[in-house]
Amino acid sequence: MNNFNFYSPTEFVFGKGRAKETGFYVKKYGGTKVLIHYGGGSALRSGLVDTVKESLTAEGIAFAELGGVQPNPRDTLVYKGIELCRSEGVDLILAIGGGSVIDSAKAIAMGVPYEGDFWDFYSGKHAEKALPVGTVLTIAAAGSEGSGDSVITKEDGMLKRGTGSDAIRPKFSMLDPALTQTLPAYQTACGATDIMAHVFERYFTNTKEVEITDRLCEAVLMTMVKETPRVIADPNNYDARANIMWAGMVAHNNIVGVGREQDWNSHNIEHELSALYDCAHGAGLAVIFPAWMEFVYKHDIMRFAQVAVRVWGVKMNFADPEATALEGIKRFRQFLRSIGMPINFAELGAKEEDIPVLVEKLGIGDGETGGFVHLKAADIAEIYRIAARAEL
Amino acid sequence: MNNFNFYSPTEFVFGKGRAKETGFYVKKYGGTKVLIHYGGGSALRSGLVDTVKESLTAEGIAFAELGGVQPNPRDTLVYKGIELCRSEGVDLILAIGGGSVIDSAKAIAMGVPYEGDFWDFYSGKHAEKALPVGTVLTIAAAGSEGSGDSVITKEDGMLKRGTGSDAIRPKFSMLDPALTQTLPAYQTACGATDIMAHVFERYFTNTKEVEITDRLCEAVLMTMVKETPRVIADPNNYDARANIMWAGMVAHNNIVGVGREQDWNSHNIEHELSALYDCAHGAGLAVIFPAWMEFVYKHDIMRFAQVAVRVWGVKMNFADPEATALEGIKRFRQFLRSIGMPINFAELGAKEEDIPVLVEKLGIGDGETGGFVHLKAADIAEIYRIAARAEL
Repeated sequence: MNNFNFYSPTEFVFGKGRAKETGFYVKKYGGTKVLIHYGGGSALRSGLVDTVKESLTAEGIAFAELGGVQPNPRDTLVYKGIELCRSEGVDLILAIGGGSVIDSAKAIAMGVPYEGDFWDFYSGKHAEKALPVGTVLTIAAAGSEGSGDSVITKEDGMLKRGTGSDAIRPKFSMLDPALTQTLPAYQTACGATDIMAHVFERYFTNTKEVEITDRLCEAVLMTMVKETPRVIADPNNYDARANIMWAGMVAHNNIVGVGREQDWNSHNIEHELSALYDCAHGAGLAVIFPAWMEFVYKHDIMRFAQVAVRVWGVKMNFADPEATALEGIKRFRQFLRSIGMPINFAELGAKEEDIPVLVEKLGIGDGETGGFVHLKAADIAEIYRIAARAEL
Repeated sequence: MNNFNFYSPTEFVFGKGRAKETGFYVKKYGGTKVLIHYGGGSALRSGLVDTVKESLTAEGIAFAELGGVQPNPRDTLVYKGIELCRSEGVDLILAIGGGSVIDSAKAIAMGVPYEGDFWDFYSGKHAEKALPVGTVLTIAAAGSEGSGDSVITKEDGMLKRGTGSDAIRPKFSMLDPALTQTLPAYQTACGATDIMAHVFERYFTNTKEVEITDRLCEAVLMTMVKETPRVIADPNNYDARANIMWAGMVAHNNIVGVGREQDWNSHNIEHELSALYDCAHGAGLAVIFPAWMEFVYKHDIMRFAQVAVRVWGVKMNFADPEATALEGIKRFRQFLRSIGMPINFAELGAKEEDIPVLVEKLGIGDGETGGFVHLKAADIAEIYRIAARAEL
């Protein structure tokens, strides 16, 4: 097992009706003037923003507000948020929404106390401080409610880049599964795919002998395999929603990733798809992840056989472990199709002829990316090609 | 799923050689004058206390020290520690040891800023503040390095009582698995039993539909079933030690317990054994837990069948699920015997004729305890009787 630090200080406030307590937690974590940050309007229409405002007012907390966060959140709104926070004297950023809103809030939180351009943090600089961030989660997907990560898209050139720092881990996150019951099935499935991808990025590793992390990964994956079809069939199934919402946090606060190398190539390869086509990140992952698996599985057939057996319930083929490994990848793709996800470029709205552009934008040139299997530009082009043409 | 809060803000610093960094983390969390608190001498003999002192000195941090913590740590030493901290102006308590030392450190941490008798916190009062606590862990067992819990024994009458508060969650914990390689097999096995018990106390619940927590529990249990025999066979197996040490934290920071009722009766029933006979807590649990399972399993046969199949690899007997459930309990007891644990009173050094005294000291009178199955005094006597006479 490799040495590691694990630090997940966020207070998670979980359960039905708990968004009403937001004001209490803002106060507990020192907020006196809050920026309420949200997206395209569903948080407004559902009355959630009003609920939160009432709970702030009840605690005597003032607020400014900034809506309009788009999926694949833009740097342009972040600049606007930073300016607003400075002029209003905001001391805590409250994200009401999903991963995009939370990521945007984190970017603003870093930008306010920083004299330079906040984009520095998405170009390799490490953030040492930030305003405190709280979240009220409305979709189980990104895990941003419990992570120190944020991904922002630079509108000029649609460059999608990430950053990570303990300074932007939320102080508290309000997780009310009932808020996700109104989500369309497609968004629910995109979120579920993202959650599973967060686990898979940590599961495929070259570090041996980390049984505890393997088993925790498989625990989250089995939960998703059981619960996702149940919420697709019945959007109001509270218990299934609750399991998925909590699994989404567990999948990404890194408790299922410690002690070993990880591989984030599928996420990076996908980012170019969602940046170019503005598709949902989860839908892009549904197309990319099985393709990546098909490209790399020979690197460690027994690890792919292990997940096939333990998570997908495939019978081990002792005479032909490779067949077991491949059956696991096939089951994953069948699962994605069954919950309504695209499995190839056509279904996603991407074009095979764009592959050179996608590879170019990843910007690895003659180099290679690290991880489970190191990839050169030609390898990534091949993964896009497998993804483009995939069938069941 | 029930509503819950989950908060585990401890920074875990995990891996070989990391105890040397203790000074850095003391400084990071604001310590300028530290109480080094330890046990019976193995931390001294191994040179660990010296290593920690050097790292403190290198950071310019002063310290006082107080050794002599016994297993089942006593209130008498806690009073001494509180006095010492006050007279020396200590601002951070550093526990070097296992659960007993950490629990003692937490008691001191609560006592220093409190005007009354610290025992109040072990008699129902909730601690709102405490000095910061850091730990350097030397045995994987209690999970106290990541929990807000502490158990202290009042020497007068050997009363063993617990308390819980976020105020005593360690700020940081140094987890170096290599430090556990010199532990005798018996202590290692006691620790492993305690870890598994912490999961089982959370696994047997009447709250339905919490798949994620079930699966996380099973992940830890399967890890322990795999790794414990490996460290018994080869005490120097670093990877197995590392898996167990991390599993010990995961088992008790409550990530495997959220969203549902728990049942801590086995721990409470055991506490009277270790208080009366001063035996190791883990050894007492090895005797009590399977007996408790035999007493309660009919309350939910399918849950016991589930753990038998998922953790112990029993084949489901669809014609007779009860046989499956019982086979799981039998496998648990076989496992405990195989790692050198006692399985009945005689092997533990306890006496069946003391059962009335044990029940009396639990102090439930005509009432009953809560949890998975509510227990009256007569039920607990019966559990002690099953434990007294258990055989494979």
